[in-house]
Amino acid sequence: MVIEILRLGHRPSRDKRITTHVGLVARAFGADKIIISEKDRKVEDTLNDVTTRFGGPFHVVSGVKWRNYVRKWNGTVVHLTMYGEKLDGAIKKIPRDQDLLIIVGAEKVPKDVYELSDYNVAVGNQPHSEVAALAVFLDRFSASKNLAKKFKGGKIEIKPTKRGKTVISKE
Amino acid sequence: MVIEILRLGHRPSRDKRITTHVGLVARAFGADKIIISEKDRKVEDTLNDVTTRFGGPFHVVSGVKWRNYVRKWNGTVVHLTMYGEKLDGAIKKIPRDQDLLIIVGAEKVPKDVYELSDYNVAVGNQPHSEVAALAVFLDRFSASKNLAKKFKGGKIEIKPTKRGKTVISKE
Repeated sequence: MVIEILRLGHRPSRDKRITTHVGLVARAFGADKIIISEKDRKVEDTLNDVTTRFGGPFHVVSGVKWRNYVRKWNGTVVHLTMYGEKLDGAIKKIPRDQDLLIIVGAEKVPKDVYELSDYNVAVGNQPHSEVAALAVFLDRFSASKNLAKKFKGGKIEIKPTKRGKTVISKE
Repeated sequence: MVIEILRLGHRPSRDKRITTHVGLVARAFGADKIIISEKDRKVEDTLNDVTTRFGGPFHVVSGVKWRNYVRKWNGTVVHLTMYGEKLDGAIKKIPRDQDLLIIVGAEKVPKDVYELSDYNVAVGNQPHSEVAALAVFLDRFSASKNLAKKFKGGKIEIKPTKRGKTVISKE
């Protein structure tokens, strides 16, 4: 099962850091790829740099005709929004045997996103953060398993430590 | 049981949006208060505005002598860091009958934070986001319950909806 994240409404002038966090969460919580609607080579570079250092596979593309991408998606489309149906119920319905595209918007999302998606899902109906929504969705959807994913080909690895830091160089 | 979040290393020029997301996550996932190390009235205002509109209680203070605050904390101190011990194991050890202070840093955290904390906990040992780490920690720690918290005194409420938006005015 492939999981891809589509980040909509990215404004390179304002959203660099939030979109970078969305991308890092996508990678750390087991997604295969992030697609960013607007071209932003800096965010691409930052995410690719983390993948080079900490391992992959994880892919980034930016500047994508996203409506086409969603329409052509061969699988399930989930849109994370505070207005959507409850996470608990939705998560049981989302098929596990199909590829999954998860749409994560910035502040406002075009109306048709609600129609293009198979499920509009709320990680709580309170305002918080697309970064948090994506993390909790992937954590719950994988029943806590994705966070333990092993990455390949990185240069460094962090070992869990009760106090201080243990960084292992693999080169 | 009181849960408070201490946000360290906030740089008002760079971190407004990330710290705001940390604060919104704190509120939405059931914490009672966020303490921001550096004074930032704008972030305070944004968070208080959400509490006015969507309900509380939730408290914000910024510009706090944080080492004193941690030392005087009467309860457990958890520091979220990618270098820490594994979430699964840690979460079973953290007492449920004591107040909880959760420290969330920005990019680099002073060394003594590791010593001042009872538990240094990694929400995965991969780089991602303090926003995501806090959300997943609170979601797991509350066994998914905090996200269903009811807030009081707000002006609007969002009802879960499969397509579109349902916003109820309570005024």
